[in-house]
Amino acid sequence: MHEPVKIGICGLGTVGGGSLRLLRGNAGEIARRAGGPLQVARIATRRPESVAVDGAAAIGGDPMALARDDAIQVVVETMGGFDPAHAVVAEALARGKHVVTANKALIAERGNELFAIAAKNGATLAFESSVAGGIPIIKALREGLAANRIEWLAGIINGTGNYILTEMAAGGRPFAEVLAEAQALGYAEADPGFDVDGVDAAHKLTIMAAIAFGIPLRFADTFTEGISALTPEDLTYAEELGYRIKHLGIARRSAGGIEMRVHPTLISKRWLLSRVSGVDNAVVVKGHAVGTTLYQGPGAGADATASAVVADIIDIARQLRAGASRPLSAPLNGRPEAEAPPAVPMDSIESECYLRIPVLDRMGVMAKITRVLESHAISIEAVIQKEVHGGSVPIVLLTHGVAEGRMNAAIAELQSLADVQGRIGRIRVAPFPAGD
Amino acid sequence: MHEPVKIGICGLGTVGGGSLRLLRGNAGEIARRAGGPLQVARIATRRPESVAVDGAAAIGGDPMALARDDAIQVVVETMGGFDPAHAVVAEALARGKHVVTANKALIAERGNELFAIAAKNGATLAFESSVAGGIPIIKALREGLAANRIEWLAGIINGTGNYILTEMAAGGRPFAEVLAEAQALGYAEADPGFDVDGVDAAHKLTIMAAIAFGIPLRFADTFTEGISALTPEDLTYAEELGYRIKHLGIARRSAGGIEMRVHPTLISKRWLLSRVSGVDNAVVVKGHAVGTTLYQGPGAGADATASAVVADIIDIARQLRAGASRPLSAPLNGRPEAEAPPAVPMDSIESECYLRIPVLDRMGVMAKITRVLESHAISIEAVIQKEVHGGSVPIVLLTHGVAEGRMNAAIAELQSLADVQGRIGRIRVAPFPAGD
Repeated sequence: MHEPVKIGICGLGTVGGGSLRLLRGNAGEIARRAGGPLQVARIATRRPESVAVDGAAAIGGDPMALARDDAIQVVVETMGGFDPAHAVVAEALARGKHVVTANKALIAERGNELFAIAAKNGATLAFESSVAGGIPIIKALREGLAANRIEWLAGIINGTGNYILTEMAAGGRPFAEVLAEAQALGYAEADPGFDVDGVDAAHKLTIMAAIAFGIPLRFADTFTEGISALTPEDLTYAEELGYRIKHLGIARRSAGGIEMRVHPTLISKRWLLSRVSGVDNAVVVKGHAVGTTLYQGPGAGADATASAVVADIIDIARQLRAGASRPLSAPLNGRPEAEAPPAVPMDSIESECYLRIPVLDRMGVMAKITRVLESHAISIEAVIQKEVHGGSVPIVLLTHGVAEGRMNAAIAELQSLADVQGRIGRIRVAPFPAGD
Repeated sequence: MHEPVKIGICGLGTVGGGSLRLLRGNAGEIARRAGGPLQVARIATRRPESVAVDGAAAIGGDPMALARDDAIQVVVETMGGFDPAHAVVAEALARGKHVVTANKALIAERGNELFAIAAKNGATLAFESSVAGGIPIIKALREGLAANRIEWLAGIINGTGNYILTEMAAGGRPFAEVLAEAQALGYAEADPGFDVDGVDAAHKLTIMAAIAFGIPLRFADTFTEGISALTPEDLTYAEELGYRIKHLGIARRSAGGIEMRVHPTLISKRWLLSRVSGVDNAVVVKGHAVGTTLYQGPGAGADATASAVVADIIDIARQLRAGASRPLSAPLNGRPEAEAPPAVPMDSIESECYLRIPVLDRMGVMAKITRVLESHAISIEAVIQKEVHGGSVPIVLLTHGVAEGRMNAAIAELQSLADVQGRIGRIRVAPFPAGD
């Protein structure tokens, strides 16, 4: 019973290195919580010479050899990317080894296939660290809230994007300027696309939605819009209307199925999530029994992410020590794919919308705009009209709820008006009451 | 594998009734998450005639008979109180049955004995619902943050008390008036002592501290002070000093061992917890790796608490279906009691303190007060001096950090000054940086 559980780590970058450090630095407490010692028995890294390895660990460069090593019980995949991560994880699972991964892209885009391999071979594929860093949101959704019919969840799940929006709002500065600063500070990557275009958030939302609603991972069905088109004026106008703008991932059960979308979102200032600033992540979940619960904390960083990686390792060690012969949790809640509710196409999702329409001269223009919206059966809830100082001034509108497809058609028609100069900005309003 | 897991429920009050309703109303989703169906096979209630029972369940009045029923695998104790709850839980565990309880008093005050019985008989004693209602904070502490050395945790863990403080602050109204209103609205019990004196919060803090720090349940060592002595003026002065007052449970690792205390606390307005209002609960946990994470949601109510009860049942069902022969988690983190760090006596815990000293006439009084504080080596950080309009006016001070015992001696001496008219108010400042 007190034989150490044998762990192999593939990839010693930020997360892998942090996990190794945590396993070593807090070994006593971790062993107590895991019911016995854990031993890092093998490490695969591209720079084996750079690692101080204790006597217990073998070190080498080949992760596939690690995945095939019969002595290893738990494979930790912290290489990132698809290749060779996918092959390594698949190989380990096929051999009945348990796998812990921090790789959100791999889970969101190849998870259905990997979970099937895991299930077939009685292996656990754990991925707490793939969403919201150290916040145990996967465990909350899968276990803590397991009694609930989840109605919706919404999260600020990309720290880089939230940092940029927080700074834009605080200083009235444009996106490009704040992004450049975030890159200089190391909060944003040299290639920031993954973060600011919403792909990273869409990976995380895809994973949370699968667990919350018992559906397959459907990354391709997750609508994704980034934050680069937002202007400091948008943040100011939103504030005037009683909202803040956050880059939200939203998954919601509706009559037609499951909505999944990542986009800039107006949320009421009275709402909890509007106050989450800087690089923090936060997820709000509405369950039919529990009501609304909020989970907030550091969404990234070596130590925070390692906290979740090692929590997964401890869970697996507990499982092994308790003599479990099968994984405790069915991936995706054990629902056959054929029974899962469909994804709602973005075109039919209804939202209230904020529109910022840049017009050259406002005389008569408001009437034209109203007419176009009316012709698409879109009604207006609020308007901000600023003084005209000659030149260009935006008309800012808040509409009542309207299906995306209808709104897209209206925007296209508005955009073609001669009075409209420049791109129309559209931001959707969060579909939740502020009191929730 | 797909035989239903057989559940018996003892007590059909708010929580038990809510759990039964939830198990029935969401049976399909719950079965999917549990890996197979759950069946409520027996119910013990004092009013068996009042329950609509489906064909599967037997109903009767004797919970001990239920605990002894060989057909029952999981006993749900939702009677509350010690008698007969203690005997019923002990009997079920002794027979190797798994037990789920919402009974915070039972766990906090008799848990050490009950966990020993559970361990001896390979049974799981689950108690997620005993702390913070539907928020899965026990799971977060025990599993989600398991890799961390927990440095401290602090929580608003009594909804009634937080509601009263929120209303006092919003309306400048005295404690007694708001309490009476809360009772009329059903937010406070007819006998509110458990809530406003802090005993309920101390039970919950005791439980969280045991898990976070791997120590036995030490309810007797948890310092407890209620909110009934707070005045609306305290809330106003705190605001002026940059703080809000919350009834916090605090557990902290310090050089001398583990601090555990429940008392009104000044927390910086910049701190997350200061913004939790109304009946919501919230717990902040600082782990050495993950940093600071926050968990917020409904801390009470039939459905929210039932959400946690049923989550525990689902966890046990998963365990049974996975073929685990032992419970997954060691209660209290598996540390032998002899190795656990001691409780820090309240007298040696150091806090910055807010003092409200009611004096009749301020001429020369400030000097006398300063002299007394100096003689106890207490230095002053800030003072609020209001205009004297004749009559009584308080002197409000904020001190630097001082050990509780020293402060008690100073307060006793101040209280004996002829100029001091009425009881001195003392409120401790939260020992955490606001940025955390």
